[in-house]
Amino acid sequence: MYTPIEKANILMEALPYIQMFHGKTIVIKYGGNAMINDDLKKAVMNDVILMKLVGMNPVLVHGGGPEISQLLKRLDIKSCFVNGLRVTDEATMEIVEMVLVGKVNKGIVAQINQYGGKAVGLSGKDGQLIVARKQFAITADAHGNEIEEDIGLVGEVEKLNTDIIDAIVEKGYIPVIAPIGVGVNGESYNINADTVAGDLAVALGAEKLVLLTDVEGIFTDVADKSSIISSLRSDEVDGLIKEGIIAGGMIPKVQCCVKALEGGVKRTHIIDGRIPHSILLEVFTNHGIGTMVEKA
Amino acid sequence: MYTPIEKANILMEALPYIQMFHGKTIVIKYGGNAMINDDLKKAVMNDVILMKLVGMNPVLVHGGGPEISQLLKRLDIKSCFVNGLRVTDEATMEIVEMVLVGKVNKGIVAQINQYGGKAVGLSGKDGQLIVARKQFAITADAHGNEIEEDIGLVGEVEKLNTDIIDAIVEKGYIPVIAPIGVGVNGESYNINADTVAGDLAVALGAEKLVLLTDVEGIFTDVADKSSIISSLRSDEVDGLIKEGIIAGGMIPKVQCCVKALEGGVKRTHIIDGRIPHSILLEVFTNHGIGTMVEKA
Amino acid sequence: MYTPIEKANILMEALPYIQMFHGKTIVIKYGGNAMINDDLKKAVMNDVILMKLVGMNPVLVHGGGPEISQLLKRLDIKSCFVNGLRVTDEATMEIVEMVLVGKVNKGIVAQINQYGGKAVGLSGKDGQLIVARKQFAITADAHGNEIEEDIGLVGEVEKLNTDIIDAIVEKGYIPVIAPIGVGVNGESYNINADTVAGDLAVALGAEKLVLLTDVEGIFTDVADKSSIISSLRSDEVDGLIKEGIIAGGMIPKVQCCVKALEGGVKRTHIIDGRIPHSILLEVFTNHGIGTMVEKA
Amino acid sequence: MYTPIEKANILMEALPYIQMFHGKTIVIKYGGNAMINDDLKKAVMNDVILMKLVGMNPVLVHGGGPEISQLLKRLDIKSCFVNGLRVTDEATMEIVEMVLVGKVNKGIVAQINQYGGKAVGLSGKDGQLIVARKQFAITADAHGNEIEEDIGLVGEVEKLNTDIIDAIVEKGYIPVIAPIGVGVNGESYNINADTVAGDLAVALGAEKLVLLTDVEGIFTDVADKSSIISSLRSDEVDGLIKEGIIAGGMIPKVQCCVKALEGGVKRTHIIDGRIPHSILLEVFTNHGIGTMVEKA
Amino acid sequence: MYTPIEKANILMEALPYIQMFHGKTIVIKYGGNAMINDDLKKAVMNDVILMKLVGMNPVLVHGGGPEISQLLKRLDIKSCFVNGLRVTDEATMEIVEMVLVGKVNKGIVAQINQYGGKAVGLSGKDGQLIVARKQFAITADAHGNEIEEDIGLVGEVEKLNTDIIDAIVEKGYIPVIAPIGVGVNGESYNINADTVAGDLAVALGAEKLVLLTDVEGIFTDVADKSSIISSLRSDEVDGLIKEGIIAGGMIPKVQCCVKALEGGVKRTHIIDGRIPHSILLEVFTNHGIGTMVEKA
Amino acid sequence: MYTPIEKANILMEALPYIQMFHGKTIVIKYGGNAMINDDLKKAVMNDVILMKLVGMNPVLVHGGGPEISQLLKRLDIKSCFVNGLRVTDEATMEIVEMVLVGKVNKGIVAQINQYGGKAVGLSGKDGQLIVARKQFAITADAHGNEIEEDIGLVGEVEKLNTDIIDAIVEKGYIPVIAPIGVGVNGESYNINADTVAGDLAVALGAEKLVLLTDVEGIFTDVADKSSIISSLRSDEVDGLIKEGIIAGGMIPKVQCCVKALEGGVKRTHIIDGRIPHSILLEVFTNHGIGTMVEKA
Repeated sequence: MYTPIEKANILMEALPYIQMFHGKTIVIKYGGNAMINDDLKKAVMNDVILMKLVGMNPVLVHGGGPEISQLLKRLDIKSCFVNGLRVTDEATMEIVEMVLVGKVNKGIVAQINQYGGKAVGLSGKDGQLIVARKQFAITADAHGNEIEEDIGLVGEVEKLNTDIIDAIVEKGYIPVIAPIGVGVNGESYNINADTVAGDLAVALGAEKLVLLTDVEGIFTDVADKSSIISSLRSDEVDGLIKEGIIAGGMIPKVQCCVKALEGGVKRTHIIDGRIPHSILLEVFTNHGIGTMVEKA
Repeated sequence: MYTPIEKANILMEALPYIQMFHGKTIVIKYGGNAMINDDLKKAVMNDVILMKLVGMNPVLVHGGGPEISQLLKRLDIKSCFVNGLRVTDEATMEIVEMVLVGKVNKGIVAQINQYGGKAVGLSGKDGQLIVARKQFAITADAHGNEIEEDIGLVGEVEKLNTDIIDAIVEKGYIPVIAPIGVGVNGESYNINADTVAGDLAVALGAEKLVLLTDVEGIFTDVADKSSIISSLRSDEVDGLIKEGIIAGGMIPKVQCCVKALEGGVKRTHIIDGRIPHSILLEVFTNHGIGTMVEKA
Repeated sequence: MYTPIEKANILMEALPYIQMFHGKTIVIKYGGNAMINDDLKKAVMNDVILMKLVGMNPVLVHGGGPEISQLLKRLDIKSCFVNGLRVTDEATMEIVEMVLVGKVNKGIVAQINQYGGKAVGLSGKDGQLIVARKQFAITADAHGNEIEEDIGLVGEVEKLNTDIIDAIVEKGYIPVIAPIGVGVNGESYNINADTVAGDLAVALGAEKLVLLTDVEGIFTDVADKSSIISSLRSDEVDGLIKEGIIAGGMIPKVQCCVKALEGGVKRTHIIDGRIPHSILLEVFTNHGIGTMVEKA
Repeated sequence: MYTPIEKANILMEALPYIQMFHGKTIVIKYGGNAMINDDLKKAVMNDVILMKLVGMNPVLVHGGGPEISQLLKRLDIKSCFVNGLRVTDEATMEIVEMVLVGKVNKGIVAQINQYGGKAVGLSGKDGQLIVARKQFAITADAHGNEIEEDIGLVGEVEKLNTDIIDAIVEKGYIPVIAPIGVGVNGESYNINADTVAGDLAVALGAEKLVLLTDVEGIFTDVADKSSIISSLRSDEVDGLIKEGIIAGGMIPKVQCCVKALEGGVKRTHIIDGRIPHSILLEVFTNHGIGTMVEKA
Repeated sequence: MYTPIEKANILMEALPYIQMFHGKTIVIKYGGNAMINDDLKKAVMNDVILMKLVGMNPVLVHGGGPEISQLLKRLDIKSCFVNGLRVTDEATMEIVEMVLVGKVNKGIVAQINQYGGKAVGLSGKDGQLIVARKQFAITADAHGNEIEEDIGLVGEVEKLNTDIIDAIVEKGYIPVIAPIGVGVNGESYNINADTVAGDLAVALGAEKLVLLTDVEGIFTDVADKSSIISSLRSDEVDGLIKEGIIAGGMIPKVQCCVKALEGGVKRTHIIDGRIPHSILLEVFTNHGIGTMVEKA
Repeated sequence: MYTPIEKANILMEALPYIQMFHGKTIVIKYGGNAMINDDLKKAVMNDVILMKLVGMNPVLVHGGGPEISQLLKRLDIKSCFVNGLRVTDEATMEIVEMVLVGKVNKGIVAQINQYGGKAVGLSGKDGQLIVARKQFAITADAHGNEIEEDIGLVGEVEKLNTDIIDAIVEKGYIPVIAPIGVGVNGESYNINADTVAGDLAVALGAEKLVLLTDVEGIFTDVADKSSIISSLRSDEVDGLIKEGIIAGGMIPKVQCCVKALEGGVKRTHIIDGRIPHSILLEVFTNHGIGTMVEKA
């Protein structure tokens, strides 16, 4: 297909990136289409295996995909949403945890192992990895006053005990993490996977945080694919939100990047998980994918 | 309640056992009533924490309890049984794995951590811990010829990769293991927890294998509680089965013990999990509980 | 004797203490009746072995018991005392050292080993463990002026080189220490064992200092056994001495505790060595023994 | 130049090779045009850096190139040859060693370091790496009887002390080795670089031996480029020599491969160093270069 | 005193011995005049310190010197002897142990430390170093039949647990060992120091065993100092005993050497401890001292 | 030749120096007659081996001796000098490097190994040990203004990467260093060996810097051998230069010592390499050789 010289050139293009990220931790939030489409799944697993093999420390945090909703539906458990957050009662939480930890997490682990990697799955309960506390939704009452609304077992990260990650990384395993937190009484909390990825990147002193999404990046003009903003300083974010250029579901993702940067992560990337091997292209080539958010 | 001298005597009774089992691995199959009753659960968790603290290496393998059946029932998935083994199609397997790994396993882990221990849960997929192959049920056809009947995703252990257990034990964690095996194509297998416990005891060079059950032990006369057989040599087992003294569900448990003894495990115990702290009493006191099966 | 449930309860009572003191150093001054009575001796040895087995680091400092006086008497060496301190000339010192190091210390070591522990005896000369300087007795001359009186080879700690303790503790041995100091010219000094225990507790960063005595503790009314002071803050000590509640031989013991607390030791205990397993009861049960002196 | 998908495909093609050779030693004989042409030199250095970064252990053995002859000529030192071996007197040996060790070796080291690798150069004298003995040329006298002819300080490997290689590899350096041996009296020997590479591959338990040459490989018909023999079993070698297909300077190279295979090296390759990145293509792609000699 | 060139020559003479014994264990039995005369004592201590500093592992086993008899005499304890062995009742044993461990051992330790070494003293009780059993004297009854005579607490080595020696040697200390054994019930045994030294040399895989004595060596003609036998093969010993050339107290010393040689010790030396620095001269110079016994 | 007692005395004289320098680094600049005369060479090699064996860490930096000039002459390459520094064009540099690295360095290495030591040679290129930059000669123009004159590839130390030295020292090798620096583009620089030795002594935290020269030391009256200045404070240097007592080639040597002292080296010595074993005498005896420069 390719001439030897072409192959060599592309491998050589990867060399400086391999040097640069040697021994560095890269936290990847894995979600969206890349979790559903079989080819994309396989590509992500292989990208992560390659990163590990060449001396990087990839850490995978995954979301739940459509499988949580499917099982809730089969069990006829209805959910309501506040500010886009699912109100999570105990019956719902039980299903969320079973799907995330017992199905999605172990599915990823099995697949990495099948392709020749060595993965171990962790829930936030293992070794008290993710200690969480209740999160409230901020809404407004009838008078427009800000109020905290109880949305059940939705949590935010209180403390990360990364010893267990260190232990398994040291032995050559790739950690795969389900974003379930554990409260002081052993109760489970559902936490946003982007947030867990960002907080973990800070706690692990990661070099990079990569968020896989289902969009191509941020555009100054959504209608014009050529207007993609390939790189962005963290102090530009507020302005772009006000202008409406960063909008909707992209807002929390970008804020998650800004928070990670403030915590010491070097670079953060919001990339299009629908492109096969998008992580590999981002990490190993000159060909930047999506939008990079850097420290101001 | 007790005088100081009484307390001291009991603590002193434990001393030789602590010496004897220092640094030794003890595999415990955790199941039955001890997994359902809250007081018994708490007692088991604390027994395991105490073992770990005094220098032993407890490894917990758990069964599924009634929760698998409950969820299957809620989802209206019906099971048929061959030779007492649940025929496990893919839809069933998915539920079995979610409950075992996402609910039961993490529940145990959270509870140990809450009581001051340090636990990490593992499925057989993590680090390829339990590689499994398909198991068939042996039945007879119309002519009385022995045939292998396909019972779906029921598996038996093919290989145990215990590196991941070593890695986390070395860092001070208690491993809690769900008996899910992984096949060559990454598919999940449901494996009997007693079998996994026995095979793990052999693979880890364990000193003891302890099976928690819901019976008091083996009796020469079931009607007579005083006829309990407190200790048994492995070469007596066949005879006792023929005599009907070892019968029903006790047969595979005793055979599991015999197999572990043949694999090098020093002592095996079938104990009554309905007695609070039965593990602790078995391991730390003169007061043997249930039936011990020893090498001939 | 005890029901299984009673045994389990008492073992469980020990669990939080084992957790609390895991990996912590506990220095024990061993003296008085507990060194003479055979049953008490055996109990102390076993308490120490149990502490070691469950992950604590016990360090034993012993006194000389009545054996020094016996040998001095057999050799017709007479002693005079200043302020309760034996004036120690070279001939006396030779006997003191031979008895402490060659008889008492090795007797304790042999006994611990016989009961299944692993002990190594050290004098302050081994690895220059206890470097000492001459101590003077403070008395008054005919005019009531304070003068330093020469009492021979009585010493005080100048420097502790605890490397040798670390080396043997790391290999799993229990150190048993004779309170002999060594001067700059290699000469021997007799040092008070309580003082050595207290200074060692500070140098080793110990969690606890336990002084075994022949009294039940400190009483507000000696005639009334129920008036025992079970706990005491270090800033209350001076007042209690003035009131005469802490008096006689108890004064230096309490002051030794106060000094250890100032040096960073967490808790100090003056306990009744005449109660069998008093150390074990103090360390492993809710049942406090004697008087605890804590930091103000 | 290439689409992202093309880049990803080529990187993915390297993945199984990176997995296969992780932690494995690969000995490369570096010589010929690849040592003269600046672009080829740079390509080789980068190939080696890439191998090191992705977890392989490349070990470079180099020849002398034309620089030895140039300096001998400038100094007007004439050489005669027996069986193609330069008769090496002391004056010649001095020059050979200075050029190989002081110029060629350090030039390679400096270049690897300049491109971001970490190299250390070694002569066979360093840590007694290559202990040598005198080699004789086998010729015939006037009567056709085989005789050993003295050709001076030409040596063969007697013993390899690879400790120094292990020491520097363990610290992350790439060893670069000049084929100078040292005799029992400290005298220098000139040894054939292919031979040193082959013997080192055996001593280091290497996975691969790669000999860079200035030919494309072995052809059944030299005139027909399509007749290249891309793979060859060691038991076919003698036949091919007899047929004249393996001839001239290729004979000792192939014999060197056979000897390495007999010593336990897994695969050996004679590749065309005139193709840029030929090592990289051989090691990381499906695109075999030159002729592989495998164990029968 | 000496010219620089003389000093340099003598230091250079030591070089090959330092190379030869680097990292090797040398067990020295220290006794006789070298333990009494102050200058000789100082010389021995310094020899041992020098050996340690240049990378050898000296292990000192000492006897009791005249101090045991002195204290027994002061206490009016009388001893009788059988076959030259002191019949050792409990009262005697108590004194022997106190003097050996509490006085002689710690005196040596203090002196080594004072001269800048790092020593730790051990009795056979520490870490169960020397496990002993009762030894009987072989005498004859009235009819000339061989009988075993009870001579009390005289012991022979049953087992050596050298872990404690390894632990302190590893940390840079010189072990100084009193030849007291411990029986199964914790009782003390008096053991011949030469025997302990010989058995330890075997157990530690020593390179050399050096026995310090008060004679110049073995002479073919005692009256003729020039007839010293400077080296001797172990198979010559029996003949020399029969000839009466090896006689009296020298017999057990030579037999101790032979036993050590059979146990794998490389060389054994019986040297004159009355010559200052005799150990140093034996170990570091061409000037052999006394008689060397080598393997046949 | 010497009596045993004389030998013992001299060995004992070395003891305190061996204690003092145990584990300490001693950097030795090796040059002058000691590199030419065969007996002196052998003596230096043996001194260094002895230092290593007794626990010191000698590091050898060598100059080039007359061999550079000889080869330049044979090749008819002429040099001019500015301020005593050879103007070094590329052709000259090539020869300098080949001789220093390929001949002198490996000659020293081979000799140390032959005498029983373990040496590894390093150029400043190995592991980027000596990163250098261009040095200019400071001269004056016709108007007496100070100007920087280009003298080609003469360099000064910019940075020392001592990792490679640590790696080989840790494995027991003696590092032998050729004073060749490497520039940012991989080009070679010729650096003064005294300067490299001084800078390395600082970078390695050396205890001593020893410069071997061809003079006996510094004299207040050169004509009077008894006027040697055996020790000198760094703050006396400027005065002695002004007085002309320190003059000529001795000035940069003394300044090199002063710089090393300012960088934390404890003591520096300028000693007469023409005395056999002068290093040994300086390091191991009371007999100071040459002139010591100490911190003020």
